[in-house]
Amino acid sequence: MMPRKGYVQVYTGNGKGKTTAAIGQAIRALGSGMRVLLLQFMKGRVYSEHQILARISPDFTLITLGKPFFIAREGMLSAEELAAWGEDVVVFPPGQPPREYLEVIRRGIELAKTAVSSGAYDLVILDEINVALSFGLTDWEQVQDIIRCRLEPVELILTGRGAPAELIDQADLVTEMKEVKHYYTKGVEARTGIET
Amino acid sequence: MMPRKGYVQVYTGNGKGKTTAAIGQAIRALGSGMRVLLLQFMKGRVYSEHQILARISPDFTLITLGKPFFIAREGMLSAEELAAWGEDVVVFPPGQPPREYLEVIRRGIELAKTAVSSGAYDLVILDEINVALSFGLTDWEQVQDIIRCRLEPVELILTGRGAPAELIDQADLVTEMKEVKHYYTKGVEARTGIET
Repeated sequence: MMPRKGYVQVYTGNGKGKTTAAIGQAIRALGSGMRVLLLQFMKGRVYSEHQILARISPDFTLITLGKPFFIAREGMLSAEELAAWGEDVVVFPPGQPPREYLEVIRRGIELAKTAVSSGAYDLVILDEINVALSFGLTDWEQVQDIIRCRLEPVELILTGRGAPAELIDQADLVTEMKEVKHYYTKGVEARTGIET
Repeated sequence: MMPRKGYVQVYTGNGKGKTTAAIGQAIRALGSGMRVLLLQFMKGRVYSEHQILARISPDFTLITLGKPFFIAREGMLSAEELAAWGEDVVVFPPGQPPREYLEVIRRGIELAKTAVSSGAYDLVILDEINVALSFGLTDWEQVQDIIRCRLEPVELILTGRGAPAELIDQADLVTEMKEVKHYYTKGVEARTGIET
């Protein structure tokens, strides 16, 4: 790739389209010859996009951290939602995330630092890292370190609801995906190929 | 594909990520075996994503309408912006869009109706159709006709800033991409692989 100036982008908010925007951005970047790493922090399940992303281009790397279940703070989900998630959900008291999660995220942060400073990638996407932050699975200093060790030409995208003010302050481009209307509120479940 | 219930999604707002979210959604859908049509209303240029989307999957169809330049209403762009676009921009007085644009969009609307009612696609994306609407290149009745003739299992996505209230009212899911901070305001131009 030609030397260029990269920027720090944030996709946050409670609406749909944060991860899909990052994936669309990855496709656009691959189309112009950029090398892309998508590092997924809070996902363990195999999502539909994985199957096609994996074979899309030799310039595309997908790393999925996380555990094959959903993690939630105590009081975050209603009894109904908990029942719907079943064994896929792990609930922890505020300030006491499970140790194995902390370790998984710590490893992800190290990977991210290497990725943005190695010259191996032109675009690095840290998917759902804002969620890891807001769950207390990592802290702002760690995320700031990633931004700090980024080589200038590297484009860095951080996604997930709840982006902290410090991140918004340091980013070049911040978009809030705002839910205006959602069919979940009509009782529709997540559908393969659309939500997952 | 299995019969399923499709929904009408809208991505609007002044922020980044509307088209990229739709493309990411296309990738996710393709990953789960859905057949996808991406119909681009207001683009004529070859964007970076086209090159990779075109070879991604036999289940993916891309149709780009429009003209190889940008269209604007009088008074919409500053003299500086006009100069930056150069010959790529066509400016028309309010209420008097160029006839050839109306014809291009009319053809697109017909294509969209066929696509959502034929059973040939599981996901149909009408990219930037909201912009065509807000420029007066088509009207709400035409867009409503597309929604009306949609087969129930078809997922329909409409993107672009300026979605009208009638569309928001009829949609199942509406997300507003809201610009919180943008490096354009620092004088950075659109970059290949990131914005185009």
